[in-house]
Amino acid sequence: MAIHYPNGSTYNWPKDNHRPKSHYNNNKLTLYGDRGMTLEQEINKSNLYYLNQDIAVIHKKPTPIQIVKVDYPKRSAAVIKEAYFQKASTTDYNGIYMGNYIDFDAKETRNLTSFPLANFHKHQVEHMRKCVHQGGICFALIKFVKTDELFLFKATDLFSYWDSQYVGGKKSIKKTIIEKLGIKINYSLNPTIPYLSAVDQLLNSKGES
Amino acid sequence: MAIHYPNGSTYNWPKDNHRPKSHYNNNKLTLYGDRGMTLEQEINKSNLYYLNQDIAVIHKKPTPIQIVKVDYPKRSAAVIKEAYFQKASTTDYNGIYMGNYIDFDAKETRNLTSFPLANFHKHQVEHMRKCVHQGGICFALIKFVKTDELFLFKATDLFSYWDSQYVGGKKSIKKTIIEKLGIKINYSLNPTIPYLSAVDQLLNSKGES
Repeated sequence: MAIHYPNGSTYNWPKDNHRPKSHYNNNKLTLYGDRGMTLEQEINKSNLYYLNQDIAVIHKKPTPIQIVKVDYPKRSAAVIKEAYFQKASTTDYNGIYMGNYIDFDAKETRNLTSFPLANFHKHQVEHMRKCVHQGGICFALIKFVKTDELFLFKATDLFSYWDSQYVGGKKSIKKTIIEKLGIKINYSLNPTIPYLSAVDQLLNSKGES
Repeated sequence: MAIHYPNGSTYNWPKDNHRPKSHYNNNKLTLYGDRGMTLEQEINKSNLYYLNQDIAVIHKKPTPIQIVKVDYPKRSAAVIKEAYFQKASTTDYNGIYMGNYIDFDAKETRNLTSFPLANFHKHQVEHMRKCVHQGGICFALIKFVKTDELFLFKATDLFSYWDSQYVGGKKSIKKTIIEKLGIKINYSLNPTIPYLSAVDQLLNSKGES
């Protein structure tokens, strides 16, 4: 849990959880998202809600790991003794929602006025391009951490800015552009991040066009 | 590469690859699948073909691993020093094919006349059930290793046999049933396992019904 003071400094609560009782417990809701959770945790929690409510089946893929050495002790589980983190070749999340293939990645930035494109790897963008080509619903969930603002940003919009950086364009997307083209997602109680409501908007606008 | 003798014993070629040249190298194709590849490798290779040909975007999910200890040596990559394999909570493969969400698992059996249901975990079957509910195309690729026969078996068929084992039914599916209800997939050169042709049959029969 981190508290962000107006002067920009951050206070991190000690890990043994000597922190004020959650606003949830006080039955007074302040919907800034649970500041103790990372974006990944917020999304996982939301996905679990969607799963349990039979709304969608969307999971985070496990982190790819290259295993070098494994021990097999007698009568106990195999122990991985040497392994390395690998770069993901796809996005982190995918699944199905009402017959639609959903594919997205989640990115946080501490910047206040823009989102650096370097947050994406080239192969992630290429993966999304291939999924869009197959008819998938692809996007990024972009969080401005310091202001707790979250946006769904369509992959097709991302592609434009991604490609333009190679022909003299900017290496980042202005927050004002993300506000204009993206769909703002407001934190809620359950699911924490109701991003499928934003996907509904995408699907509706698709139907109209 | 393992050679399976008729008496049931197995000979594993030494790792330095002193094994007979692949039939592919001899330019004489025997389409039993490459016996040096596991089913997983065959599917990964096929998925790569589908990906490169812009036919579908289907990936194997990384194996979930619980990381306990990581070292961060100076000036080099983080090394995982203690970690354990976790059971997957979903199937191994998913992705998108012509707008359809695809979700499946691959299972091998050395049995000759039946496929033991114990090859599946309960949560994998539940995952497929939820995906089918959302409109996904779900199935198992079942390989009878000793005869190199491969079948696409629809998840909805699997559910019947899976459920019946809890009410006095058999703990396995007879091969004759898999031959009757499933779709046989013949090995080919590229993709090694043309399983999307079998999916086409599923999609066509869906359209008719």
